Amino acid sequence: MAVYTDITETELQAFMDDYDLGNVLSYRGIAEGVENSNFMLHMEAGEYILTLYEKRVDAGDLPFFLGLKDHLAERGVTCPVPVHRRDGKLTGMLAGRPAAVITFLEGMWLRRPKPANCRAVGEAIAKLHLAGADFPLTRTNAMGLASWRPLWDSCDPKESVFEAPVIDEVGRELTHLERNWPEGLPSGVIHADLFPDNVFFLGGKLSGLIDFYFACNDRFAYDIAVCLNAWCFEKDNAFNLTKGAALLAGYQSVRPLSRDELTALPTLARGSALRFMLTRLYDWLNTPEGSLVVKKDPFEYLNRMRFHRAITSVSEYGVDLQ
Amino acid sequence: MAVYTDITETELQAFMDDYDLGNVLSYRGIAEGVENSNFMLHMEAGEYILTLYEKRVDAGDLPFFLGLKDHLAERGVTCPVPVHRRDGKLTGMLAGRPAAVITFLEGMWLRRPKPANCRAVGEAIAKLHLAGADFPLTRTNAMGLASWRPLWDSCDPKESVFEAPVIDEVGRELTHLERNWPEGLPSGVIHADLFPDNVFFLGGKLSGLIDFYFACNDRFAYDIAVCLNAWCFEKDNAFNLTKGAALLAGYQSVRPLSRDELTALPTLARGSALRFMLTRLYDWLNTPEGSLVVKKDPFEYLNRMRFHRAITSVSEYGVDLQ
Repeated sequence: MAVYTDITETELQAFMDDYDLGNVLSYRGIAEGVENSNFMLHMEAGEYILTLYEKRVDAGDLPFFLGLKDHLAERGVTCPVPVHRRDGKLTGMLAGRPAAVITFLEGMWLRRPKPANCRAVGEAIAKLHLAGADFPLTRTNAMGLASWRPLWDSCDPKESVFEAPVIDEVGRELTHLERNWPEGLPSGVIHADLFPDNVFFLGGKLSGLIDFYFACNDRFAYDIAVCLNAWCFEKDNAFNLTKGAALLAGYQSVRPLSRDELTALPTLARGSALRFMLTRLYDWLNTPEGSLVVKKDPFEYLNRMRFHRAITSVSEYGVDLQ
Repeated sequence: MAVYTDITETELQAFMDDYDLGNVLSYRGIAEGVENSNFMLHMEAGEYILTLYEKRVDAGDLPFFLGLKDHLAERGVTCPVPVHRRDGKLTGMLAGRPAAVITFLEGMWLRRPKPANCRAVGEAIAKLHLAGADFPLTRTNAMGLASWRPLWDSCDPKESVFEAPVIDEVGRELTHLERNWPEGLPSGVIHADLFPDNVFFLGGKLSGLIDFYFACNDRFAYDIAVCLNAWCFEKDNAFNLTKGAALLAGYQSVRPLSRDELTALPTLARGSALRFMLTRLYDWLNTPEGSLVVKKDPFEYLNRMRFHRAITSVSEYGVDLQ
């Protein structure tokens, strides 16, 4: 739920005068996206998304995020692309924030994805990994392993959410992951946040990927681990083996995984589950009353972390070691 | 801020199969409107608004609300109109709620209206009053005088918001209004909630009125009193005489007000300020933590009520008795 910053029609029209899109016809705040303020924007030239980057996004990262979309779109990965201003730039300032105008992508995100959709997501993310290979900019994963312990330490008071044994468990998990995090795996540009609400489908086919604001350079297999967590668990927190197998088969139909990558999956998935548990816990503790953000349950990802910890063979994800 | 009910793409497509608008291309929750869930809907046939009526709206009132928009649009009052289903009906059921598809109206609501905009609003509301004259359905004002004391009594614990002297003051105000509420004034269909976010402008001209979900039969001058409160106070709670004069002049250029109506304005404006203070107070006390609704300050309307109570002549609104 995301309109943190409201804008007046006069400041919007002044901002849009730097584009070649004609006059503003209407704009409505969109109740999607958690990090930024998003508006559906009707210009004389057509429909666009206007994004105001709030403080959670580092303005220094915008050339990476926006340039990546351009790069991927040129290589056949369907995603919204930033519109260039008359001066050639991709961003300007609006209401004191960096802002960009992005093309509008038709399609719907799936509230209840099916195995065939998971296969399509696997294929899409593998294509993204290949298409990103020659992207010249790099970005460290700001939500990677190194960030987890400081984030956990800053979750205060964690005792208001978790019992003491759970707090001990998370501490041990952090130590385990710090000591056993897989190194030397194939790496490159990853999406890092490919949840169902960031993948659009139209007529049963994947029509595009959105929201690249966590994209970074990291292990390709970590992106798959994120998707296993985001796409392959049911509402009752049970892992759906059919969906896991479909996602991994879709991925491997485009980019086969090495034995090392497959073996690393349970550890990467534990880390990914911990990462989302931590940000949810932090938001739970720090979202002010009356905020527009829906608080998400950190226990959901605690349970997924436990599931991955109990994995003894990657076949439990629905894939066999070659 | 309003998406209370999320919907899946499959249930949406099934719902839209009862319309002649082709396939669903996309839908996005809109962060506007307080009573209902609203989505921007792209169909093959074009753009629409999809509204799911939440429990605050009585389904029995929908023929009045939706029929009124049709009626007004036919008489030149620009407003969104409901799309008829194949079976001729204006509503169906979606996600367990009555739902309607409404045409999309271009335009923007003004965050900082100017006197010329207030004049246009005065004209528009007078035209609405005239156009509603032959509308065959009627609806009691559910938020009228009779509802205020029960609403005040149900605001619990009011002591958590107001000091004891303010609680006494509101009680006295209620008694005064119950004893002195103007009777016998010209009445008909009124909008009853014409705040700036319900009036669209495009290129400096009023392009349409939206959100008729408080429309009812009541005194025309009460609708003006609502607009005086909604349009003619500045952020510092000071009344802007220029805006008040413009609003009233705009109205009278279309439908001149009688001496009785002008004389009644301060009392009607006190009542209208009390009405919005009460609903804000109720929402303040009853909005659960983590809700998507932005709580609005009840003190703002307490101050407006006090302003109107101190009015000794209608000339203080910027209009002279004839």
